[in-house]
Amino acid sequence: MAETSGDGVVAALTEALGELVLTEPSLRAEKAQDRSYHRGEPPLAVVQPRSTDEVADAVRICSLHSTPVVPRGSGTGLEGGSTTSAQSICLDLSQMDQVLEVAADDMYARVQAGVMKSSLNAALQPHGLMFPVGPGVDASVGGMTSTSASGTTAVSYGTLKENVIGLTAVLADGTVVTTGGITKKSSSGYDLTHLLVGAEGTLGVITEVTVKVHPIPETAQVSIWSLPTLAAAAELVVAALRSSLRIARVELLDELTVGALADYNGMTFPVAPTLMVEFEGTASDVAAQFAQFRTLAETYAATLADEATEVEESARIWQARHDALPASLSLVPGSTPMISDVCVPISQLAEAVLAAKKDVDDAGLIASIVGHVGDGNFHVAYVLPPEDPETFEKAKAINQRVVARALEAGGTCTGEHGIGSGKVASMAKEHASAIPAMQAIKQALDPQNIMNPGKVVPPRPHP
Amino acid sequence: MAETSGDGVVAALTEALGELVLTEPSLRAEKAQDRSYHRGEPPLAVVQPRSTDEVADAVRICSLHSTPVVPRGSGTGLEGGSTTSAQSICLDLSQMDQVLEVAADDMYARVQAGVMKSSLNAALQPHGLMFPVGPGVDASVGGMTSTSASGTTAVSYGTLKENVIGLTAVLADGTVVTTGGITKKSSSGYDLTHLLVGAEGTLGVITEVTVKVHPIPETAQVSIWSLPTLAAAAELVVAALRSSLRIARVELLDELTVGALADYNGMTFPVAPTLMVEFEGTASDVAAQFAQFRTLAETYAATLADEATEVEESARIWQARHDALPASLSLVPGSTPMISDVCVPISQLAEAVLAAKKDVDDAGLIASIVGHVGDGNFHVAYVLPPEDPETFEKAKAINQRVVARALEAGGTCTGEHGIGSGKVASMAKEHASAIPAMQAIKQALDPQNIMNPGKVVPPRPHP
Repeated sequence: MAETSGDGVVAALTEALGELVLTEPSLRAEKAQDRSYHRGEPPLAVVQPRSTDEVADAVRICSLHSTPVVPRGSGTGLEGGSTTSAQSICLDLSQMDQVLEVAADDMYARVQAGVMKSSLNAALQPHGLMFPVGPGVDASVGGMTSTSASGTTAVSYGTLKENVIGLTAVLADGTVVTTGGITKKSSSGYDLTHLLVGAEGTLGVITEVTVKVHPIPETAQVSIWSLPTLAAAAELVVAALRSSLRIARVELLDELTVGALADYNGMTFPVAPTLMVEFEGTASDVAAQFAQFRTLAETYAATLADEATEVEESARIWQARHDALPASLSLVPGSTPMISDVCVPISQLAEAVLAAKKDVDDAGLIASIVGHVGDGNFHVAYVLPPEDPETFEKAKAINQRVVARALEAGGTCTGEHGIGSGKVASMAKEHASAIPAMQAIKQALDPQNIMNPGKVVPPRPHP
Repeated sequence: MAETSGDGVVAALTEALGELVLTEPSLRAEKAQDRSYHRGEPPLAVVQPRSTDEVADAVRICSLHSTPVVPRGSGTGLEGGSTTSAQSICLDLSQMDQVLEVAADDMYARVQAGVMKSSLNAALQPHGLMFPVGPGVDASVGGMTSTSASGTTAVSYGTLKENVIGLTAVLADGTVVTTGGITKKSSSGYDLTHLLVGAEGTLGVITEVTVKVHPIPETAQVSIWSLPTLAAAAELVVAALRSSLRIARVELLDELTVGALADYNGMTFPVAPTLMVEFEGTASDVAAQFAQFRTLAETYAATLADEATEVEESARIWQARHDALPASLSLVPGSTPMISDVCVPISQLAEAVLAAKKDVDDAGLIASIVGHVGDGNFHVAYVLPPEDPETFEKAKAINQRVVARALEAGGTCTGEHGIGSGKVASMAKEHASAIPAMQAIKQALDPQNIMNPGKVVPPRPHP
């Protein structure tokens, strides 16, 4: 039975875990939400375990008190996946920051859930290896796994789904399970690994992750292309994907983003629909691919705006892409973002982006559009001025239209940001026939509904 | 309540589905098992639906009669995944043979479960596309999906897991669910697609599959290399995987297999541990990769035994690989195979293979060893003479030792053949901590335990 005061569960947690249980109001307030516009309420306490066993202890105690458990990684989520309620416990995994194993010959790494992508890459670099998957912002491996994140490299390396091969997780009753393994493939039994990837902590708390790692390429070359129209950009991407080219990354920036970047960090390209294209491999291979792409690009009237083969210059150019959101926000002082994250079949991309752009323009909003266009995934980042409920409501309405059109086009309401608390209703529309099965699985693994309740899967109607 | 005669369920199926319900004894006997040594009992009837709705009708009727449903694709399984019991219904999906959609620009295809890999490729070829994943033998897409199959191309294209993006399935109560979608990525909700991939029909009957498809490469070049030792072969593969090379396929054949092939199809290579290595891409890219690999191979004292860049010549060489099993069986007239299918971290591969070889030699058995060595996956194919229970028991004992050593090395009891009825006990060892969660999911989705019972997941103890 849930306690309304929460004193009992906090006392029990403190008895078991001591100073790992924190109740300072400022910390509780800080951990109540992620980077999105979704707001939570300060939780009863913030627990900062350092091991799977400590997570298991915490979850077992919460289970005994029927207290909701909200896991949290680096707090960089964009759909309210880690927002807490006043009666919940925040399980802050940021102290689980140990890289447990780098198996260079077997090309996997095993990390605690709180390890940041940058820390993992620092551990891999001496072995000539890397973990290239994830968002532009640095984030925890556990959080990225829980939201099935991806980013600019998914077109070549896949998402977290394709790169996680095993997990350790704590289930709702406090039992610890290990799923998957360390081999490159397996067909042994139910794939619990991928049931937990993207479940956002609603079926269990991910405490350790085993990921595939990849050789650092000898060379990478990024080039920037200006296109006459968005449709031409999309067509060029489809043609490149269907060719023998192996695209490492291909990103779309709209005119507003290009303009904002010039003001923000001095990157000046022609104000036009812009593609950033990267090839990886040996120097000769990259040169040959670039030449082949140039020929293709010219048939779509693309013009080369910039290119870089040196590591530093490439990093500077990619920083421009990662600055897209802050650059757009800098157009309106004090603003916060709301971000659409739909993914459509690539053949539908130009139409979907143009329709979103028209909605934004018709409503008089400021919003940048960027896309992982090789995957058909694009973001509309609505810039929300402070204390402006009218703009907020307008953005929300457009976001819903963007999602509705994506679903009509056979797409998904979220390519990589997850469902969180923001897209539960959209998911119910997207997966209408599968929701009862999802609810049955949730009920089977979390009968008290204490694992990040209210996120991802709509509640099951009580009989 | 299950009926002992089965007359009721067959009558009800016949009333609903008419001539799709077949009860000829010879057909029932034929559909009682797959290609493995596992034997089933003739089922009550064989139902051959042509649509998802007909599958749903059949499952609903079986559910009402508490009658087990055993789905069957092309019947090419190797672990008894589709063996039937005398009280079950065989749901033979081979008539569901329609390619429903080829989306060339969006690079996916949607097929009915019974479509053969060869038929899918015939439909894709005019678009310059292919579906390269799957075993050497032709098999149904639904069956490959259900067993999480892979084959020689997994090292570059992944397994069925990485290539299935959406499914239609019929659950135990006859409801139809669609999972996943047609986009390249999504982070919306529980990944039911990958819960069903590899579940071998124990959670639902897969009726339609949406797969990623890939451009046909401009050129492919296969070369055959003789190595001084098995350990040298494994070390060369690790070095190649960690380099900038992009290996399309890399297969290991042991001396016995090489010798058997010479007799069987006249392919003569030096009798030595042998690697078949393929590169794909543009002609110049392939030539550059081959030159780089040659330099690497020579440092491991590998010698080039054969090579082919022309399509016909390559096909002839790959046929040699696909003939490995019949060639080995031809050594003993009338023999049948039992096949180990373990996967280990690649660093453990040489040791695992050598230990298996020693076991085989010590027992005086005939067994060929081949491996998808880029994945750490290898097969020991024990040649079982007819009516020879002693050899059968010896092979079984070695198979168990091969699996036990694989698990000790951090590997899996099955890389691609699935669990079926043959490896349930091994899976329980491999996933000890996760079995209760698997049982809870099975119980939630199939409370009567009618979906391919006895396969994959060990039965839940009754309270």
